Amino acid sequence: MLEILDLSRKLAPETGLVERKRLGAELARLQRATFAHGLPALFVFEGLDGAGKGDSLAHLVEWLDPRGFKVHAPRAPSAEEALRPAWWRFWLRTPSRGELALFDRSWHGELVQKRLDGALDDAAWERALAQACEFERQLVAGGTVVVKFWLHVSREEQKRRVKAWAQDEHQRWRAELARERRAHGRKETLRVVEEVLARTQLPEAPWILLEADDDEWRRVGVMREAAAALRRGLAALGVTLADPPAPDGAAPAAPVAPAPDTLPPGFVIPAASPLARADLTLRLDRADYRRELGAAQARLRELGFAGYARRRTTVVAFEGCDAAGKGSAIKRLTEKLDPRGYAVIPVAAPTAEEKGHHYLWRFWRDLPKGGHLAVFDRTWYGRVLVERVEGFAAEADWRRAFREINEFERALAEAGVELVKFWLQVSPEEQLRRFRAREADPAKRYKIVADDWRNRAKWPQYVEAVGDMLRQTSTAAAPWTIVEAEDKPYARVKVLRTVVGAMERAVGRDAPP
Amino acid sequence: MLEILDLSRKLAPETGLVERKRLGAELARLQRATFAHGLPALFVFEGLDGAGKGDSLAHLVEWLDPRGFKVHAPRAPSAEEALRPAWWRFWLRTPSRGELALFDRSWHGELVQKRLDGALDDAAWERALAQACEFERQLVAGGTVVVKFWLHVSREEQKRRVKAWAQDEHQRWRAELARERRAHGRKETLRVVEEVLARTQLPEAPWILLEADDDEWRRVGVMREAAAALRRGLAALGVTLADPPAPDGAAPAAPVAPAPDTLPPGFVIPAASPLARADLTLRLDRADYRRELGAAQARLRELGFAGYARRRTTVVAFEGCDAAGKGSAIKRLTEKLDPRGYAVIPVAAPTAEEKGHHYLWRFWRDLPKGGHLAVFDRTWYGRVLVERVEGFAAEADWRRAFREINEFERALAEAGVELVKFWLQVSPEEQLRRFRAREADPAKRYKIVADDWRNRAKWPQYVEAVGDMLRQTSTAAAPWTIVEAEDKPYARVKVLRTVVGAMERAVGRDAPP
Repeated sequence: MLEILDLSRKLAPETGLVERKRLGAELARLQRATFAHGLPALFVFEGLDGAGKGDSLAHLVEWLDPRGFKVHAPRAPSAEEALRPAWWRFWLRTPSRGELALFDRSWHGELVQKRLDGALDDAAWERALAQACEFERQLVAGGTVVVKFWLHVSREEQKRRVKAWAQDEHQRWRAELARERRAHGRKETLRVVEEVLARTQLPEAPWILLEADDDEWRRVGVMREAAAALRRGLAALGVTLADPPAPDGAAPAAPVAPAPDTLPPGFVIPAASPLARADLTLRLDRADYRRELGAAQARLRELGFAGYARRRTTVVAFEGCDAAGKGSAIKRLTEKLDPRGYAVIPVAAPTAEEKGHHYLWRFWRDLPKGGHLAVFDRTWYGRVLVERVEGFAAEADWRRAFREINEFERALAEAGVELVKFWLQVSPEEQLRRFRAREADPAKRYKIVADDWRNRAKWPQYVEAVGDMLRQTSTAAAPWTIVEAEDKPYARVKVLRTVVGAMERAVGRDAPP
Repeated sequence: MLEILDLSRKLAPETGLVERKRLGAELARLQRATFAHGLPALFVFEGLDGAGKGDSLAHLVEWLDPRGFKVHAPRAPSAEEALRPAWWRFWLRTPSRGELALFDRSWHGELVQKRLDGALDDAAWERALAQACEFERQLVAGGTVVVKFWLHVSREEQKRRVKAWAQDEHQRWRAELARERRAHGRKETLRVVEEVLARTQLPEAPWILLEADDDEWRRVGVMREAAAALRRGLAALGVTLADPPAPDGAAPAAPVAPAPDTLPPGFVIPAASPLARADLTLRLDRADYRRELGAAQARLRELGFAGYARRRTTVVAFEGCDAAGKGSAIKRLTEKLDPRGYAVIPVAAPTAEEKGHHYLWRFWRDLPKGGHLAVFDRTWYGRVLVERVEGFAAEADWRRAFREINEFERALAEAGVELVKFWLQVSPEEQLRRFRAREADPAKRYKIVADDWRNRAKWPQYVEAVGDMLRQTSTAAAPWTIVEAEDKPYARVKVLRTVVGAMERAVGRDAPP
């Protein structure tokens, strides 16, 4: 089976780049469609050490909205997990409607390892294979897209890659893990792998066998197959990529009459507001932007590995005006990071379950594990912003929240968590320009909703609420960073550099208590 | 502080029993009111080993609806927990609206232990005490009732109790734990305890110091203070116990005109249905009932301890006609069990989050840990019962579910879980009598809702669905037990004896794979 693969297949870097750009744009559109239509998808990445699972994942998610996917890297069961049936931990990680769950190793890798270690006799092995098929069939029958990649690397290429890890101080642990796993020998390992592949090759949840010696060939292959799987899943729901409208304008939507501006006439940010001090003329030219963005992203990637190795945790909290560019700043912040090391947590109106709890409960729940980075797209500050302005929280409740939030953030700081808080500020005029641009672009029209115009009518109330928030909650343990966001390049670079500084502090810290 | 307590205080067993019955009935009413009004409550039980924390909990919950409380016995942080800020695991266990969370040991006990072990220097100790106060104040400000019990036991009585554990094979591990914890000496331990009590004695989250040498004195004290706390919490919401109506009829509700019967005229259970074979004349007289119930409950309690010690898991699934007596059977099943060893999972219509997942997801999620008992009040069979009858699931979906459910249950069996499935059957005539009795009793009227009458109109469809379910899913790994429930005493004893048999099998099994 695997020996048939032609591992000499290659793609020239320039061809690969063009292909990845094309497929990336398509994946981004497909992801918007799977979200809009509530299609869940689950991709599994398996392969020997050094096959490029992590790199494939990274090049895939680089094109995706980080609010829409979760990366799972299940290792040996924790004590909690070991006390339950083996499938419990995988069921809990299955994607919800519209979500994409990406598994860096899975039940399949675990099966192979257990069989090699002699932990499964023939009967247990048979049952485990059957249960893997049952699990995947149940998910697919319930409407989930399931695709499994086996990335196949040659003996020589694998050796080269593991050796490179051993020479990198942040990745040395991976080389050690790989050495342990090689104990059974390549031939014996692949014999067991092939049996798993053959026995769990389901028409509804296929294995894609991909040559992985050449990076470009592998990356493009993963993106192409992932896009094809999502397209098939959408087609089964009767959805084609014409809706929502494609940015290439293949199906030009009818022009929409611009909505009337809702900003209260004559409104200007009062001079007494801390927001009035933001210098919105700050700009960065294109060339500087590209250079600084690249440098900061590279440094963040290193710091991500170092933070993981040292178990240092960073939490980044984003608040800001509508259309201030939170989403695109988060995208630039995360796109070059190892996707196994971070999570983006989009914060919307609380669900019924969340409403049943204290307003801080869901933020406690979503705190990252040691060594990870969590990015909150909107935060616990909703209590003193939207809940205050809209009257969802009584005055006594949001006033008390300043103190409660300071306590919460101090508790994080004392637990060794590095916290960064951004307020992204644009002028009312720039916000209007961006709203109009969204209205005019069929591919972006979905981004502007009636709520945006309603919020715009409340600039005066929001400016007051933000001012109180900045004054009350800019503490030594957790200061605010105001990001002048009139110029997107400037804002993005300021965000990235601030996070670089925070992660450098996190990595330099002593071990948490 | 603690030396002031008069540990010779006693209550005669007969007085205690009368008081407990009175308080128990009141607690049951209070719990219904807290559920109806969405009041969350959190009770903490702390005390030296042998102070009677578990026994107090057991005597408290004996009177409560097991669907409305959760017992937490946090031990040392798991690996997952240790990777997050210390308060994460306690935040995750805070009660939701209408829920009661009961903590057998808590952050307070942990603080004491860490301080005794020298793991907290003075600064860390101060901050930890401050954070405990912040945590509790935040919860109370958010609307949660918080009450903390310190059960105080004398040196002599504690010794006696720990010695008794050492002589009981199932409780020996507790004696060993207690011995370890005594390493610091009583005097030093109580000095630290007193500091915690004093520093976290908050008006809004008070410590109740209770003499614990006499069991009756302690049990009654806990119940009295718990009831008082819930009454205060309800009063703060403007609720008094008159609504919902008290069973003593203090505020007699207006009589309600009986609803018209909705059973299709002439309906009888078809002879071909497996339900027609249930012998609904089976009865048990009062004296036999009391004797057998007592014996089975005592045996279940033993088996609960043995199952915990051997890490054997039991899952009990309840399905049945409306008013067949599921709730009261569950109550009898659990009321004498150690509340730290079981959980009752009420299954209602799925939440938005649950709807976002595969229909089996929430049942996987709620599977118990090794050594525990989980009781599902309604189950995954909703897919082939209500979802089929009401048309919430397409025919292809519920037909496929027979196989999926068999796979699910077989996976449980193979993971070493002992599964018991009950179908509680009453005749249409008996169901009508019970509906009418509920209508007539102001204290029980809340139990009968329009849905009950709508379901009654669908007896023919349900009999068909139940018949298919019993035929398709009574497997060797997971057989159904049909419980003839026309006579409640007979049904309850059959349920308890069946679970006794299952737990005996579970305890006798080899270790799970």
